[in-house]
Amino acid sequence: MTTLFQLHPRLMQDCITIGRFDLCQLLMMNDSQYPWFILVPERADITEIYQLSKADQHTLTQESSYLAENLATLYKADKINIAAIGNLVPQLHLHHVVRYRIDKAWPAPIWGKFAAVPYTHEQMTENIDQVKEQLKIL
Amino acid sequence: MTTLFQLHPRLMQDCITIGRFDLCQLLMMNDSQYPWFILVPERADITEIYQLSKADQHTLTQESSYLAENLATLYKADKINIAAIGNLVPQLHLHHVVRYRIDKAWPAPIWGKFAAVPYTHEQMTENIDQVKEQLKIL
Repeated sequence: MTTLFQLHPRLMQDCITIGRFDLCQLLMMNDSQYPWFILVPERADITEIYQLSKADQHTLTQESSYLAENLATLYKADKINIAAIGNLVPQLHLHHVVRYRIDKAWPAPIWGKFAAVPYTHEQMTENIDQVKEQLKIL
Repeated sequence: MTTLFQLHPRLMQDCITIGRFDLCQLLMMNDSQYPWFILVPERADITEIYQLSKADQHTLTQESSYLAENLATLYKADKINIAAIGNLVPQLHLHHVVRYRIDKAWPAPIWGKFAAVPYTHEQMTENIDQVKEQLKIL
């Protein structure tokens, strides 16, 4: 029996889909406190990176680095925080969070720190447009 | 001018070196609350994964997955949390934390949550021996 990939309902609720790479969906977390993006490999029933095929692990690394470097450039980041946690949402997803020495949570990690502050419609559209242009996603 | 790799003093202070893979040093955090291991690529002046060469990124992924899968087996983990944060220690290092649904911090991430509780000498020796055997590190 083949299980089809479906985005976890919690990710669907908290994020906006920006586009697709070869392996991953690219999501933006609807939290205006930090530029916060998530890669979700479109593979069913995977909870850990090591469960992906070697080829998929390689592709995930490439897509993650492409994303991280472009986010660092676009947002002039002080640091990019990358993490696969998944204690609450088991579906494998890789966080990429742009951090500044002056952001609200610095130097702590942002997970579980402050409740999300949703973007206004205008802010969201602007961010998505900028990110898509930087990443060359049509 | 070539800069030589040197382990960051903070990592040296908080961790025990377990061994080496092709690219990374393997450290164990001296915190008995969670089995917590760190990979540090032995490359000077690198703060982000994307700054490594493509070949090194590939090797890092392989070493990380080898470590994560073996930790999951050895410790019968409910989840492995993997993260490159580096807000306090800029030298690139990749956390691998064994998590249980019954551990002290679950489901929150562990970083910045509780002060470390050092291992006793006996616990430390036992853990290191088990991990080295599982990972086939001599």
